[in-house]
Amino acid sequence: MNAIKDAVHDYIEVDGVARELLDTAAVQRLRHVKQLSTVRLVYPSASHTRFEHSLGVYHLAKQALEHLEISDARAESVRAAALLHDVGHGPYGHQTERIIERRLGRHHDDVDHLLADGELATVLESHGLEPGAVADLIAGEGKLGQLVSSDLDVDRTDYLVRDAHHTGVPYGTVDPGRLVRVLQFVDGDLALAAGNVATAESLLVARALMNATVYRHHVSRIAGSMLERASERLLDETDLDAATFARMTDAQLLAALRECDRTEPLAARLAERRLYKRAVWAELEGVPEWVLEAGHAACRDLEADLERSLGLEPGAVIIDCPGRPSMPEINARVVVNGDVRRLHEQSPLVQGLQAAQRAQWRLGVYAPETHAETVRDAATDALELSG
Amino acid sequence: MNAIKDAVHDYIEVDGVARELLDTAAVQRLRHVKQLSTVRLVYPSASHTRFEHSLGVYHLAKQALEHLEISDARAESVRAAALLHDVGHGPYGHQTERIIERRLGRHHDDVDHLLADGELATVLESHGLEPGAVADLIAGEGKLGQLVSSDLDVDRTDYLVRDAHHTGVPYGTVDPGRLVRVLQFVDGDLALAAGNVATAESLLVARALMNATVYRHHVSRIAGSMLERASERLLDETDLDAATFARMTDAQLLAALRECDRTEPLAARLAERRLYKRAVWAELEGVPEWVLEAGHAACRDLEADLERSLGLEPGAVIIDCPGRPSMPEINARVVVNGDVRRLHEQSPLVQGLQAAQRAQWRLGVYAPETHAETVRDAATDALELSG
Amino acid sequence: MNAIKDAVHDYIEVDGVARELLDTAAVQRLRHVKQLSTVRLVYPSASHTRFEHSLGVYHLAKQALEHLEISDARAESVRAAALLHDVGHGPYGHQTERIIERRLGRHHDDVDHLLADGELATVLESHGLEPGAVADLIAGEGKLGQLVSSDLDVDRTDYLVRDAHHTGVPYGTVDPGRLVRVLQFVDGDLALAAGNVATAESLLVARALMNATVYRHHVSRIAGSMLERASERLLDETDLDAATFARMTDAQLLAALRECDRTEPLAARLAERRLYKRAVWAELEGVPEWVLEAGHAACRDLEADLERSLGLEPGAVIIDCPGRPSMPEINARVVVNGDVRRLHEQSPLVQGLQAAQRAQWRLGVYAPETHAETVRDAATDALELSG
Amino acid sequence: MNAIKDAVHDYIEVDGVARELLDTAAVQRLRHVKQLSTVRLVYPSASHTRFEHSLGVYHLAKQALEHLEISDARAESVRAAALLHDVGHGPYGHQTERIIERRLGRHHDDVDHLLADGELATVLESHGLEPGAVADLIAGEGKLGQLVSSDLDVDRTDYLVRDAHHTGVPYGTVDPGRLVRVLQFVDGDLALAAGNVATAESLLVARALMNATVYRHHVSRIAGSMLERASERLLDETDLDAATFARMTDAQLLAALRECDRTEPLAARLAERRLYKRAVWAELEGVPEWVLEAGHAACRDLEADLERSLGLEPGAVIIDCPGRPSMPEINARVVVNGDVRRLHEQSPLVQGLQAAQRAQWRLGVYAPETHAETVRDAATDALELSG
Repeated sequence: MNAIKDAVHDYIEVDGVARELLDTAAVQRLRHVKQLSTVRLVYPSASHTRFEHSLGVYHLAKQALEHLEISDARAESVRAAALLHDVGHGPYGHQTERIIERRLGRHHDDVDHLLADGELATVLESHGLEPGAVADLIAGEGKLGQLVSSDLDVDRTDYLVRDAHHTGVPYGTVDPGRLVRVLQFVDGDLALAAGNVATAESLLVARALMNATVYRHHVSRIAGSMLERASERLLDETDLDAATFARMTDAQLLAALRECDRTEPLAARLAERRLYKRAVWAELEGVPEWVLEAGHAACRDLEADLERSLGLEPGAVIIDCPGRPSMPEINARVVVNGDVRRLHEQSPLVQGLQAAQRAQWRLGVYAPETHAETVRDAATDALELSG
Repeated sequence: MNAIKDAVHDYIEVDGVARELLDTAAVQRLRHVKQLSTVRLVYPSASHTRFEHSLGVYHLAKQALEHLEISDARAESVRAAALLHDVGHGPYGHQTERIIERRLGRHHDDVDHLLADGELATVLESHGLEPGAVADLIAGEGKLGQLVSSDLDVDRTDYLVRDAHHTGVPYGTVDPGRLVRVLQFVDGDLALAAGNVATAESLLVARALMNATVYRHHVSRIAGSMLERASERLLDETDLDAATFARMTDAQLLAALRECDRTEPLAARLAERRLYKRAVWAELEGVPEWVLEAGHAACRDLEADLERSLGLEPGAVIIDCPGRPSMPEINARVVVNGDVRRLHEQSPLVQGLQAAQRAQWRLGVYAPETHAETVRDAATDALELSG
Repeated sequence: MNAIKDAVHDYIEVDGVARELLDTAAVQRLRHVKQLSTVRLVYPSASHTRFEHSLGVYHLAKQALEHLEISDARAESVRAAALLHDVGHGPYGHQTERIIERRLGRHHDDVDHLLADGELATVLESHGLEPGAVADLIAGEGKLGQLVSSDLDVDRTDYLVRDAHHTGVPYGTVDPGRLVRVLQFVDGDLALAAGNVATAESLLVARALMNATVYRHHVSRIAGSMLERASERLLDETDLDAATFARMTDAQLLAALRECDRTEPLAARLAERRLYKRAVWAELEGVPEWVLEAGHAACRDLEADLERSLGLEPGAVIIDCPGRPSMPEINARVVVNGDVRRLHEQSPLVQGLQAAQRAQWRLGVYAPETHAETVRDAATDALELSG
Repeated sequence: MNAIKDAVHDYIEVDGVARELLDTAAVQRLRHVKQLSTVRLVYPSASHTRFEHSLGVYHLAKQALEHLEISDARAESVRAAALLHDVGHGPYGHQTERIIERRLGRHHDDVDHLLADGELATVLESHGLEPGAVADLIAGEGKLGQLVSSDLDVDRTDYLVRDAHHTGVPYGTVDPGRLVRVLQFVDGDLALAAGNVATAESLLVARALMNATVYRHHVSRIAGSMLERASERLLDETDLDAATFARMTDAQLLAALRECDRTEPLAARLAERRLYKRAVWAELEGVPEWVLEAGHAACRDLEADLERSLGLEPGAVIIDCPGRPSMPEINARVVVNGDVRRLHEQSPLVQGLQAAQRAQWRLGVYAPETHAETVRDAATDALELSG
């Protein structure tokens, strides 16, 4: 049996190029990158990895291709892209994504440099696949790239179900068996077959409930912000270069943070779960436009100003201002009465979910428990928060 | 062990009055009333019964009482009411509900007559409980009645999860363990504790997705309508009285329908799954106000007119016009910033879900496959449908 | 989508002849025959039907054929046989099996008469299949018949997993995804591929644990024996013929039992769960050889003698003497070091499980609670029980 | 809510001393020690940690104490012991257990030194608990110590179910809800209540099937042996002391192995899954007595001899000779006919399972793929293997 037992999809049969890709260092590294970074501090069972998730995405891509009856050479490239779609992730995945983007100008979907030569290129080419074409699929380019990266990709189907399974939260309202069966191409665009508005809505709903309950849980956001600030400082104050940083595993990053004097205190807090507390937890409507538009550097300056004015040590204040809420799935295409429509044109639920996202949005300012009160007042002033 | 193994809640410990109630004829009868009536024609695994569901509601009520720290005499009445809450259901549950209401003027929550004397009364009284008080709880009266019947009752928690489990549909986004822990009374009203807007929304969402995918699946609605019409004819054309009818089991009703010449053809169709087809499947906006307000008798007259004008035999046309969409859960109370608010005041999702319900609403006109085309045109005219 | 949602196997795609067979009266009837007859009196969630199970067996047969790369005309016959394998079951399945065998000389696997003409024959022939050949496969004949009925058939894989799912008992230690992947034919015999001794053992173990906990639970055996005796009396004392009896549904049998004066008391007891109690529950070693060999008629005579001598009414004593314990799975073929061996030759576990089966075996004598004491003494004497 | 969501037991309510213990460094460290060490190389979903497992054991202990109606001061000590029972584990748990025993003379159950002072002592004492008494419970001493560590402890119940859940293997045939309900003390000994021979057998069976399929999978054993040898070399050839080693996390050990020149090659192989292969895989009966008795030092000498004679570098040959098979659960006490018996006295299954364990037992000799053939012959000679 070349079948691997998976807790979500049961057996995953790994064939062709995928079998060799599986044993490459780039894919094996994903065993050491957790899927949900700091969420496990809230949901202890959520220790699953991007390796396991990548296998799941490969499996669903394979099933979708079968149902779409695509079995030519392009299919093998799609399967390779599905398995490799996360190799570009840095340690702790999304948590270090923006650091890597700022320093290397590279999104995690941009994997040309990883596939261009070395072990991955060798394996792909030995199976007659063109590394550049696989990288393009991972970036969501072309008709078939939509299977790997788009508002209807199999990536989100896998992670919504898998994250629900491993957290134990019953909100992964996605039916993978149905989704892979109702995908179809209409004029080159990926869409859900007629009769599947509710199927598309279920993706939105799962996303919304998982956001509220899991992905954006305040404890996970606090720990994630601490990790992000510590990582930036590590890059700023040591000779660690960003490219090396981007290839670390979770544990290698943690170890590096503990070895550096300037980041050790934050790293120790993370390891022992002595997390910062919320000094501010502000709703969208109370946050002025200039704060929302401030950008990374300006936020760091604001933090430093607050620390100075309150006589706190550097790193004692963290401002966590997420981007405006967005839900890419609202653009998913659905066939209705023979026409292809965007989900937001068809589903009155979309507006409600978008409003719910806005209502759940929070700007956080975090600080050590002892300073939380002081920071609250100062930050409310400095950020001109109301309400 | 007095614990009963349940596929949803694992072990259910049955103590006190519940142990004796369990073996009464009224409760044992629920083994023969399916929870989802005709849904099993679409989801073959959904053969679960109201007996199993009643045990589940009993279990959740018990847990909720524990978390609410209510352990006095009233608690035992609530547990009895939870176990008995469905004894008033006729055969096929909700499918015969309106027939019974029209003929006996009694809702299934109205169980005074069943508890007033006989075996149930004897058991309740032998445990020092007052049958009338238990019946009141089942009708949702009083503070504690809200646990058994209200927009936050444990009844809906159990059925949403149980129906998802047995159909295999992954849309039962309800977390019973959380719900029983966050219920609280505020000034005598049942509410969800602070921080649980998303918990309340999950109930709404589960309901909306289950409606679209399971409860209102058109195949189930067609079969249900056939069953309802056949049942009415049975009551009209035999000497079966409505009170006897209301105490039948599913199988007893099916058998009675097959034994009566006038209802046998419909019953045979149901047994062999030769169902009527949709002649009309109209959206809410295309249905004129007078049809929505027409009421039962007027609809039956319209059916008869159509049958006559098309030369079809009585029973060949079924008009299935559900009430306007409603979602009782939107009134659920949630504590927000120390105040009790209604969910629809707090959650922008509510409006979207209500709109989605309206968008999913359909009026159906059903007929044997051979007549579907003819009936479509005539019914569209007769009902003045547009769009 | 021609895919049916199943609570155990997720989506089951029904194609070809199976789609038409599904809507035949013979297959639809299986919706009304419970898979576990009286077990639901112990495990309330176990209301699943032979219809659902038949779909599951069809699904596994399809998967096994794919993995075995059998795609020619015979494959379609095997799939038809898998879907139809239980159409020969009487009401309450195994519970009436021996009655039907005694009166019609027909095992439930013997379905030639059901397939020879009528609707099933028409459908099979319209797809170019030979009804007799399909019936042979159901009887386990020929190489491919082993997939449908043998010690490694997909029937047992489905029911072990499904019964565990619906009872909630965690003892369905079977891995269907693995089993369908490791089946292979060696010299025409179905065997498990090398490295699968533990896979074969898991079938045995599941069977043994399910026997002890579910299938042979004493409450289910008592109810089953009451049903069996009542059914025999119904056939003896009314003009109901055995062939008609054999085609009844569960509910039709229950209704018939309640309508007949002679069987009504037992039927009422079953409906209200006022079951007989164990007067005797004897281990194998305490039961004399002549009792084990006594056979049906002799046991009925013994019952009548006991009733007379104790002055009890006919039907008040039920002797329930199961056959000697057997485990067909011990003969399953497994490839070990290149040779095909029988499981019992290879696995030291087999002997232990057989001994455990013997240790769990019980002869029961049942009677109404009020007579249980009296019957105990008399039956112990009459059956010469020791120990 | 003080309830933590768990993927296996749903909500775990953490109260009293447990809430404070949870945030200690010793318990938080368990987030970084995987429950199944190298098993995740075979079952990618098995990334769960000893932290999650410790919460599960705490939960079951709490439930067992409730059912046993033990609510006095000792109960709080048992709950503390349950939560802390694994704090003595080194990195990779059982994989480094023997190293730590040899060098520190300490079993992982021996945690006196960890509880005697420091953070854990402070927390325990602040709740009026005596650290020494809690350590004794963890070592299984006294009547209540049996709940934490014995052949019927809740530890094994949790890990069997949890490991099955996370691997996806359906062989965790244990019913925790039943087990905590049927525990009782008879004359101070923990036993299962009458009617639970099959419950006890289910523990044995789960253990046997999980051993064969998961715990002793050859890929996991090879990786584990590589890790163990590398760890020993690390301790031998660096100034890392054994006490520090014993407090490492999984990742810290891996990092240390990669930083040391002498262990880097093995560590790189583990990280990239370039594992040694089986040169020898010998059954119990083919292994001479002197090899089984050889002990650690003698095995290391044999490895060195083989390496020298074949001209291989140190570390190229690994002999993996497990102890003789044992199943502690066979001594579990069960009440039968009012007497307490040991399971092996009562269950004929025990003998079969013991024989199956012996049949599955293997001595392995592992080497890099290129040398496997050469090592096979030399090792077979050197170890005098037959058959």
